[in-house]
Amino acid sequence: MPTLLHLDCSARPESVSRQISTEFAVAWRAAHPEGRHIHRDLAATPVRHVDAAQIEVVTRLETAGTADLDEARQAARTAKERESWRHSWELIDELLACDVLLIGLPMYNFSVPSTFKAWFDRVAIPPLIVDSQTGKGPLSGRRTVVATARGGSYGPGSPRHGDDFQEPYLRTAFRMVGLADELHFLHAEMTKSGFVPGLASYRKAAVGSLRLAVERAREIARG
Amino acid sequence: MPTLLHLDCSARPESVSRQISTEFAVAWRAAHPEGRHIHRDLAATPVRHVDAAQIEVVTRLETAGTADLDEARQAARTAKERESWRHSWELIDELLACDVLLIGLPMYNFSVPSTFKAWFDRVAIPPLIVDSQTGKGPLSGRRTVVATARGGSYGPGSPRHGDDFQEPYLRTAFRMVGLADELHFLHAEMTKSGFVPGLASYRKAAVGSLRLAVERAREIARG
Repeated sequence: MPTLLHLDCSARPESVSRQISTEFAVAWRAAHPEGRHIHRDLAATPVRHVDAAQIEVVTRLETAGTADLDEARQAARTAKERESWRHSWELIDELLACDVLLIGLPMYNFSVPSTFKAWFDRVAIPPLIVDSQTGKGPLSGRRTVVATARGGSYGPGSPRHGDDFQEPYLRTAFRMVGLADELHFLHAEMTKSGFVPGLASYRKAAVGSLRLAVERAREIARG
Repeated sequence: MPTLLHLDCSARPESVSRQISTEFAVAWRAAHPEGRHIHRDLAATPVRHVDAAQIEVVTRLETAGTADLDEARQAARTAKERESWRHSWELIDELLACDVLLIGLPMYNFSVPSTFKAWFDRVAIPPLIVDSQTGKGPLSGRRTVVATARGGSYGPGSPRHGDDFQEPYLRTAFRMVGLADELHFLHAEMTKSGFVPGLASYRKAAVGSLRLAVERAREIARG
């Protein structure tokens, strides 16, 4: 039974990134009627920021070089650590159980929303980091799809290409935990052209960009 | 009366980034006995993630092209918007009132902690963005000091230089709001060498890196 883990991070319920991720999820469910679709809304129900207790446990794992998942699961010692670690493992188990990871991810100020970073810092624990020799880890081989919405244009050749700290950052972060083996980005760009008068000439480009993102979402979901 | 706004973001009370930022603050207070030192601990008391209400207000400002601070302050309409906007303006007013912005900022998974991103997404509102013609805005001219702690090494020439999504990201984000006119980074690197056995050979480099960061912090604080 294939499982789709679908995260949304936009603060706005009617956001463009949610529109694309929803289109993906609908197409995926149609193509996988036996599949499970788990939806986690990181804006509606934020994950708690990483705390001192989690860093204490992670430091212990790094010191011991623990690469075993079950050993890591038992690594919390104090009541505070157990409580914090349990919160993280709810997210880690959800991630381990999925076949496809789908993320609706707006760009906020050149990077990812704080709600997404809180999630990633909770799940990126040592045993999920790929082995430096083999490049493989427990999450390797999963398909990852990131549906973004960006106020401006950040693609190759655009004047702001160097200001994209969303896609290049995620490529590096996801590579670390084996989520970059089949990583797709679907960018809807120039979303601000819909309301900023000075950007009105980009509206057609924005519509085309969203249409293309949705089409590719459907294709990948069916594939 | 000069004002130092001092933010700390590390989840750990005894962190390296806090150690450097504290050294800066102590030296600054000694050099400015008449000054005000405002300390905001973003880990102990997190700022709320940006919400739909704030994005609603910001979109309204972007649509109208509002560059006036007092107009922006009054831009919330509904009860939800007013409540969210008030939370942001507490932070914005604190930032506007400072002469020096000091940030203790660990690197978490190649980038900034989610607690910092939540703060930045709250304060980076349209009237603080620099004018595209003059490059100046209400925050221009302030001195900004970022004291980081990084598990590995990310400086120019290091194999992981391209994986630094902390300093380059902040240079871009801070440039947008006029906080890059006099922007200093004080990096304490290889902090993981203190406990990861495989990195033990870097301990001397780590100690030297921290010592240099503290020395520069004191110099800049006095200057």
